[in-house]
Amino acid sequence: MKPVCLVIGAGAGIGGNVGKRFAAEGYHTVLCRRSDEQGLQQLVADIEATGGSASGYLLNAIEEGSIEDRVTAIEEEIGPIEVVVYNLGAQIGDRPLEETSYKAFEMGWQLATFGLFRTAKAVCPKMEERGKGVILVTSATSAMRGNAGQHSHAAAMGGRRMLCQSLNAQFASRGIHVAHILIDGAVDAPDTLGKMLGAEQFQKLRDQRGGEHDGLMLPQQMAETYFHVAHQHRSAWTHELDLRAFTDLAWWNH
Amino acid sequence: MKPVCLVIGAGAGIGGNVGKRFAAEGYHTVLCRRSDEQGLQQLVADIEATGGSASGYLLNAIEEGSIEDRVTAIEEEIGPIEVVVYNLGAQIGDRPLEETSYKAFEMGWQLATFGLFRTAKAVCPKMEERGKGVILVTSATSAMRGNAGQHSHAAAMGGRRMLCQSLNAQFASRGIHVAHILIDGAVDAPDTLGKMLGAEQFQKLRDQRGGEHDGLMLPQQMAETYFHVAHQHRSAWTHELDLRAFTDLAWWNH
Amino acid sequence: MKPVCLVIGAGAGIGGNVGKRFAAEGYHTVLCRRSDEQGLQQLVADIEATGGSASGYLLNAIEEGSIEDRVTAIEEEIGPIEVVVYNLGAQIGDRPLEETSYKAFEMGWQLATFGLFRTAKAVCPKMEERGKGVILVTSATSAMRGNAGQHSHAAAMGGRRMLCQSLNAQFASRGIHVAHILIDGAVDAPDTLGKMLGAEQFQKLRDQRGGEHDGLMLPQQMAETYFHVAHQHRSAWTHELDLRAFTDLAWWNH
Amino acid sequence: MKPVCLVIGAGAGIGGNVGKRFAAEGYHTVLCRRSDEQGLQQLVADIEATGGSASGYLLNAIEEGSIEDRVTAIEEEIGPIEVVVYNLGAQIGDRPLEETSYKAFEMGWQLATFGLFRTAKAVCPKMEERGKGVILVTSATSAMRGNAGQHSHAAAMGGRRMLCQSLNAQFASRGIHVAHILIDGAVDAPDTLGKMLGAEQFQKLRDQRGGEHDGLMLPQQMAETYFHVAHQHRSAWTHELDLRAFTDLAWWNH
Repeated sequence: MKPVCLVIGAGAGIGGNVGKRFAAEGYHTVLCRRSDEQGLQQLVADIEATGGSASGYLLNAIEEGSIEDRVTAIEEEIGPIEVVVYNLGAQIGDRPLEETSYKAFEMGWQLATFGLFRTAKAVCPKMEERGKGVILVTSATSAMRGNAGQHSHAAAMGGRRMLCQSLNAQFASRGIHVAHILIDGAVDAPDTLGKMLGAEQFQKLRDQRGGEHDGLMLPQQMAETYFHVAHQHRSAWTHELDLRAFTDLAWWNH
Repeated sequence: MKPVCLVIGAGAGIGGNVGKRFAAEGYHTVLCRRSDEQGLQQLVADIEATGGSASGYLLNAIEEGSIEDRVTAIEEEIGPIEVVVYNLGAQIGDRPLEETSYKAFEMGWQLATFGLFRTAKAVCPKMEERGKGVILVTSATSAMRGNAGQHSHAAAMGGRRMLCQSLNAQFASRGIHVAHILIDGAVDAPDTLGKMLGAEQFQKLRDQRGGEHDGLMLPQQMAETYFHVAHQHRSAWTHELDLRAFTDLAWWNH
Repeated sequence: MKPVCLVIGAGAGIGGNVGKRFAAEGYHTVLCRRSDEQGLQQLVADIEATGGSASGYLLNAIEEGSIEDRVTAIEEEIGPIEVVVYNLGAQIGDRPLEETSYKAFEMGWQLATFGLFRTAKAVCPKMEERGKGVILVTSATSAMRGNAGQHSHAAAMGGRRMLCQSLNAQFASRGIHVAHILIDGAVDAPDTLGKMLGAEQFQKLRDQRGGEHDGLMLPQQMAETYFHVAHQHRSAWTHELDLRAFTDLAWWNH
Repeated sequence: MKPVCLVIGAGAGIGGNVGKRFAAEGYHTVLCRRSDEQGLQQLVADIEATGGSASGYLLNAIEEGSIEDRVTAIEEEIGPIEVVVYNLGAQIGDRPLEETSYKAFEMGWQLATFGLFRTAKAVCPKMEERGKGVILVTSATSAMRGNAGQHSHAAAMGGRRMLCQSLNAQFASRGIHVAHILIDGAVDAPDTLGKMLGAEQFQKLRDQRGGEHDGLMLPQQMAETYFHVAHQHRSAWTHELDLRAFTDLAWWNH
């Protein structure tokens, strides 16, 4: 039976590419995303076409029980979850306080913070029982500092970072590796950045960053580091690391 | 008309003492707390007995509209709010993940993070219009790092810290001074630490820390710094500072 | 006998103004600076003209024994040093690596890091014996993050910040209050920023920031916070705080 | 011609193991250390025995020109340096201020901070010309916070961390990848921890941490992450990451 890698937030960017990377190494990848059944099935088909194994589910993380039920079903029907990639974002673009609604603020927390808490409540007892497990959490610059216009995002991601630290503090010694992966640059991801910018602006940005587009962060390259961290020996675990393109200034430099 | 200092979370510790300090300097202090009408009226009476001016209201911050309505009423009936002291804590003691309920996690966020967001939504437009205002936010070690057993508290306070930074980034140049005051030690506060420990343990701790109890953080002394920060000239504002007793090790040292 | 406040790095900006502030409250202020005997004596005269007490000495901090001998002489001839304001900067302007000489790099360390270490070696035993003392250290953005062109400055100030933390860790419980004061903006200081920019550029900057110049950080206002921190009750000490003008973005926002 | 990996500080712990890892992947590894010619030649022999390529040199980093001349010689005689592993430590054990001499403080800076600066001055122009290069810097908990007894070490490592950030800020966009690798736990390294503790204490610690010793950080496992970081695609570079054993608490948790 293949080990399972569960990706929560599996679009065509980081989530999908990390899922592919794990599938290529012998994991059964379970891809979950909120919408776009077609895009989801395409990801599954892509993995299967290269000899990998995957399943895909639409999952609305905000819905009561959605994550919890999926975890239970996977463990019963597919196999033990060895790796969780928590990749739900909560970026809603820059909005001043007066344009940030209560609803937007709460939704940011539900996706970025509470969703991870619920995921941890569901998987940690199982991982602890098995004495091993990995939780990779995609994070963002806003986890490190709040900018004007990032009221919802920064509060949500800042809470998420502290939650990762508390989970790590409780569970590392029991064999669960929690890693907080700080994405500190623009990702070449059509489903998130692409949608936020619009097709034309997105292509323009890609072109500006050079012919290989590697002035943007390439998700298939980022996936290498996700995979590496998940397979670090337990005598040398990373809890937090940053990732950015060589053309990006670090958040503390601008 | 006196300027108003609104204290949200006004027990016998930091909140009450900061309220007294501002009242002593000519502010009308509005004290809000969730329960204990008698304790609240005692604080008001104490202030009035020394020639100060104060009002007290029970306020359940989690209740819809509670903070917003109070802000509106104060501005209409008492006067412009110049200073807000956001002093609601969300410490529930050390609890491992398995004993931290969804409800506890959400309540932490509502008190520590969402409540501040709602407060800012209510007061910032008014302060911005007047070109000045101060928001002092009491914070805790858990805003800086997550410990085992602090899943709810750390996520809530970490989100709060990032929110303070984003509020500051948007509003400082418009005259609103947001300060994040990190309380990094045990406070000699009967309503919070006292209740958490129980009367006997609390007295024992006080005794251990020496005859003047100043190995614990004394809220009347802390209030001096709250007052100072609120009155810094706008050419020299502090956004973040820590406070601890001389006997406390800083959070990064233990 | 008046308590002594020793200012190392007493130009017309932060150092001089902090010295004046302490003198106005009854301290004998000892002002030390590397050069400009006339400017130094003017500061002393200014203090004396308003009824304060001060002395001034030229002091080349890099010279062997210079700080140590001055401390000894003050303790013997004037009185116990209660407060040290370590205000030596090491900013040499933006220089890429290829233009940063070994000598410049070493000088940065000698002024910003080693000089503080030597000062602490000289005063801490005396303060410890008396069970009290204050060391206020002026710091800069570069203590928090390294920028291109700040190789020397960032290394020097980053080391200084860690030194402040280790001094605090050893000496707080023995009554010595070490505070790291992060200056995160441009100071209206003719002797430092003024000289770096040149007279014309400096005046232009002052004018841009508004008629009261308070878009620049005003040293006489900053001095209020230095004085406040030095007089916090030992149950509520600040180890680190930032200062910037209301028009400045925090370092993490740009 | 093989690419060169230069390890400055190549004992039997991190340095030696990282050197071996790179040699195993086709690099010519140049190992430098201050003393123990025999141990050095053993490392070289070990690498050659498994088909790898290596050279070893005694190098006293504090000596004028030592690093600079070695870099020049390597580039002329062996080949272009693609990777530098700067692995010199400056830990001298816990010493209170009164037992930390000027000399010890300065030596800490020379090894940990100035040595890296000199190395960067020597290699960056060459790497910049070639449009690529990697500088991996081994760091320690003391780069993040100063503890009592760590006056020299914390100042030196804190300065080093800021230097890494300034180097990264200047050189990342020109193809040089600078990574700051925070070692936040005890390493199973006979040449450093072993010598500091003494043979008996060291063995006791190893035994306590379990039969596989993996409660200590195993340098051969850490080397995997060094190698991974050095080979990240330039669209997804890590500047800072931490490493600790699963049994270690993170520095912010204790």
